[in-house]
Amino acid sequence: MNVLALDTSAVTASCALINEKGILAQSELRNGLTHSQTILPLVTDMLKNARISLDEIDVLAVNVGPGSFTGVRIGVAAVKGLAFTRNIPCAAVSTLESMVYPLAGLPISGIVCAVMDARRGQVYNALFSVEGDSVQRVTPDRAISIEDLKKELENTKKSVFLVGDGADLCYNTLQPIAIPLTVAPDPLKYQHAVGTALVALQLYEKGETCPAEQLIPVYLRLPQAERELKAKQNAE
Amino acid sequence: MNVLALDTSAVTASCALINEKGILAQSELRNGLTHSQTILPLVTDMLKNARISLDEIDVLAVNVGPGSFTGVRIGVAAVKGLAFTRNIPCAAVSTLESMVYPLAGLPISGIVCAVMDARRGQVYNALFSVEGDSVQRVTPDRAISIEDLKKELENTKKSVFLVGDGADLCYNTLQPIAIPLTVAPDPLKYQHAVGTALVALQLYEKGETCPAEQLIPVYLRLPQAERELKAKQNAE
Repeated sequence: MNVLALDTSAVTASCALINEKGILAQSELRNGLTHSQTILPLVTDMLKNARISLDEIDVLAVNVGPGSFTGVRIGVAAVKGLAFTRNIPCAAVSTLESMVYPLAGLPISGIVCAVMDARRGQVYNALFSVEGDSVQRVTPDRAISIEDLKKELENTKKSVFLVGDGADLCYNTLQPIAIPLTVAPDPLKYQHAVGTALVALQLYEKGETCPAEQLIPVYLRLPQAERELKAKQNAE
Repeated sequence: MNVLALDTSAVTASCALINEKGILAQSELRNGLTHSQTILPLVTDMLKNARISLDEIDVLAVNVGPGSFTGVRIGVAAVKGLAFTRNIPCAAVSTLESMVYPLAGLPISGIVCAVMDARRGQVYNALFSVEGDSVQRVTPDRAISIEDLKKELENTKKSVFLVGDGADLCYNTLQPIAIPLTVAPDPLKYQHAVGTALVALQLYEKGETCPAEQLIPVYLRLPQAERELKAKQNAE
């Protein structure tokens, strides 16, 4: 049971190949080039070195958002292309959820708050309850103001562990806050295809995969161009 | 300032390219083939995808042990080969230390006990004191009996976080023990070239690199063949 996962939702591109026993191979790259140039060579080289062909892949997974609009679209398009002709089932993974699963088993007890900077005073966010190996989703993925997030976190009365590229922004903006707050250290702070693959393994076991043509990006907010168009139309 | 690091001290082969700002690229592979077949293609593909040539590498780092005798020798030989003709300074990194640096900043407070299974009732081990971002070495790398390690850990009267491929073995063998004991979760449990590179960056800043020809494996114990020869000679 081989899962191949891609993540291109932020600056770093990554891919991972796992099975039920663990990681077979993974690669990550942050060379400043666009993901459309980097992700497929990264995947091809990883599979070549692992001596695994696409025909041996049982699930193809990708972070479908939230994240960089262009980045997410590149990842989804790449996975669609790889999966379509081979009829490989696809797993649409939440970027926020993919950050949280690698934390299972850490000495964390309380709320994990996955946050990505969505600009304009908002973050893309979801809350998870983590206790030992168990990860439970508390909220859906959403775009939320940092102010509203603060109220929610204080209401939990639990200690909060921040992950994601919005972790430092949140840590600073949320102060002072009435609950203990920790920022994940760098090696655990950002999304990586290993987390995507871990979530995909669970989706597969629950029968929650989809055919390539049903894979779509999840943006949570309208792209800037559409927002501006709407504002223009409303003003007319 | 680019650091290229390799690890082949256990079952997984890995390489990493970092600079002062963080990870530029990293790859890991666990395909059951010998490291002599896997490590150089892994490094070559990583550098190609990162668009960095060997001439742009300022330090070449490798885990020189403890670890698999053959694995360590392959890693050291590969780095010597890459560094020698280009006169790239080398960093000889302790495998045990390389496991601990990626934990800096985690919500751990107390002793990190890095342990690798050395068989025959022993572990390769070193203790580190970790507090927030600060990592301080408490003992040198050594081969030690699990019994003696238990006494030492109990004497610290601190909570202990176990990393390395001997972590589960230790956790089970050390019970019952009078101090709180936690095993690192899988994503943080094993050595990886990213940790090697992080330690190498510090060695470079302290001026503690060496020329390729001075790089040697550190085994802590005699190889099995030499042990058996000695036993035979003593018996004669």
